Amino acid sequence: MSETYTKRRRNVVRELHRRQLDCLLVTHPANWYYLTGFTGDSGALAIASRGTTLITDGRFTIQAKEEAPGVHVELQKGALYSSVGEWLKKRNIRRVGYDPEQWTVGQFKALRASSGAKCRAIEARAVVESQRTSKDVQELAVMRKAAILAGEVLEGALKLLRPGITEIEIAAQIEYQMTKRGATGPSFETIVASGKRSALPHARPTSKCLRKNELVVLDLGVILGHYCSDITRTVHLGRPSNRIRGWYRAVQEASQAATAAVQAGVTCGEVDAAARGILQKYGLADYFVHSTGHGLGLEVHEAPRVARGQAIRLEAGNVITIEPGVYVEGVGGIRIEDDVAVGVRGSEVLTRITRDLIEL
Amino acid sequence: MSETYTKRRRNVVRELHRRQLDCLLVTHPANWYYLTGFTGDSGALAIASRGTTLITDGRFTIQAKEEAPGVHVELQKGALYSSVGEWLKKRNIRRVGYDPEQWTVGQFKALRASSGAKCRAIEARAVVESQRTSKDVQELAVMRKAAILAGEVLEGALKLLRPGITEIEIAAQIEYQMTKRGATGPSFETIVASGKRSALPHARPTSKCLRKNELVVLDLGVILGHYCSDITRTVHLGRPSNRIRGWYRAVQEASQAATAAVQAGVTCGEVDAAARGILQKYGLADYFVHSTGHGLGLEVHEAPRVARGQAIRLEAGNVITIEPGVYVEGVGGIRIEDDVAVGVRGSEVLTRITRDLIEL
Repeated sequence: MSETYTKRRRNVVRELHRRQLDCLLVTHPANWYYLTGFTGDSGALAIASRGTTLITDGRFTIQAKEEAPGVHVELQKGALYSSVGEWLKKRNIRRVGYDPEQWTVGQFKALRASSGAKCRAIEARAVVESQRTSKDVQELAVMRKAAILAGEVLEGALKLLRPGITEIEIAAQIEYQMTKRGATGPSFETIVASGKRSALPHARPTSKCLRKNELVVLDLGVILGHYCSDITRTVHLGRPSNRIRGWYRAVQEASQAATAAVQAGVTCGEVDAAARGILQKYGLADYFVHSTGHGLGLEVHEAPRVARGQAIRLEAGNVITIEPGVYVEGVGGIRIEDDVAVGVRGSEVLTRITRDLIEL
Repeated sequence: MSETYTKRRRNVVRELHRRQLDCLLVTHPANWYYLTGFTGDSGALAIASRGTTLITDGRFTIQAKEEAPGVHVELQKGALYSSVGEWLKKRNIRRVGYDPEQWTVGQFKALRASSGAKCRAIEARAVVESQRTSKDVQELAVMRKAAILAGEVLEGALKLLRPGITEIEIAAQIEYQMTKRGATGPSFETIVASGKRSALPHARPTSKCLRKNELVVLDLGVILGHYCSDITRTVHLGRPSNRIRGWYRAVQEASQAATAAVQAGVTCGEVDAAARGILQKYGLADYFVHSTGHGLGLEVHEAPRVARGQAIRLEAGNVITIEPGVYVEGVGGIRIEDDVAVGVRGSEVLTRITRDLIEL
């Protein structure tokens, strides 16, 4: 594993040369984990051609030395960003790259104030993220397991669904089963949304009881070996009406169309349009209130965005979600979500469970 | 509850007048929940004397209308910060307050680019946070329950501890019990760290089995009614050595001294010094590698910081953790953590379980 990290850091150094930077400051935990294996959640990683230094506080120094061989660990003195600034100044570093989307205005100012007049902070967006979107064989193997595990947990949860049980109880069982089966935990707060609440795409589970003749949306994912999965299925308690069946069919067809569109070279906007076009055909486009999907990996939301008009092209090794939905205020919602890996030719759906409407 | 939110927003408007701002942009979810009851996790809340507007995307608009009566909900068009900028421009808002610690450099630039030349973004730090540190009677009642629940879950977990069980299994049981007993979930990833791993203050639970003659640190908290608790106990499997007993006694005495120091008017630095002084007396000051505590509320880490040299004075209504510890690399660690509410006179320890060394 240590060689993988070294290789990834070498890619960053190559990018530094291309951008004429002396050093890149990495302040986002998923990024420093990707580059070093360090799992702590406070610090700053400085990557330069002469070596890599992690500046962190006393809670994390022992752990950092254990987890990140080949990385020099430096104890932070005082506030983090001032400490990093002084470190840069002492080393006479002139051109330092930072990601404006990950630094607060306050952090930026603190660094500027302490790094001296000769040091310039230069925008370097998504240097690590753009490497992270392309998963290697080992990463794909872990993500496949994470998707399958999420599917198994979801199928297990279906056995619990019955009128009278609360959304919270189902969510608690789901998250317990995840950990029980080897996940580090959920990759986001599990969504169990029933009846009218299923029309809220990001509903939190409540003490509401499930009732007969309701839709139930289950949206869940696990973190397994640091990688995330994210899947959704919608089930119906009792026999659904023709209207519900029609909506479900439309979402299912949208899911199939978008999944079929996934391959290297296609733009994310085209994948989104494939889903949106089907819902439009059924007169449901206005009820699809979010984008079709997002990248998945160390984080549950990462690049690329699979949304309207996105010109970025899919590449082999990308892993994205495909999750069209229809939400009708006051009635209910339907969403189907799978994790899909982009291959050189075609794609691989990592999720292994049925997309058909499940009636319980 | 709606009146509470209105009152809190009125306090913000008063602060706007004092700072000669036309509007405050609130972009931190815990802050907008505090001011409106909205529980979504994307958007921007604009507070002005003529009213409050939440700009959010299609995933959250239905939910926002339900959760935040009295707040005008506006559908975001395109990227969030550009959308907010255009909204400010259209309303001719000139002086808008933002928190530099909560805005990324990228967000700040996007807002500036879209809000027009007449609109000025002015630093307004911790306007909502400073109100949040002072808990009212209802908040304290919820936090008391959250602390008691965490204690009950911890006591329940003690029954599971035996050689052979993994750290992960204990953590999974702990988090399941939290939800089962009414919590929304854990307030942070539960720490179960045994043996040498207990010397890592922020260890993640692993598949390591507990063994006889080991220290086990259990650090956990619940979210109950949106408020967090955060407690730690350290137990020993089997009879501890005299060295371990000595360390434990020192940490326990440090915990008592710091708790006894808590009252309105005392500085946070003085509380920290009370704990640190005891550990110094035992020659253990160098093994106490973090600060004595932190504020607690809607977030598990909030103001005030209870750390070395902090000049800020405690006020009635503050809730803080007191969590001295001793960490010896390669051997193990001990931490005792309680949640303490600052009263007008004295303090109230919200945690109800013993601080004595538990031998199992």
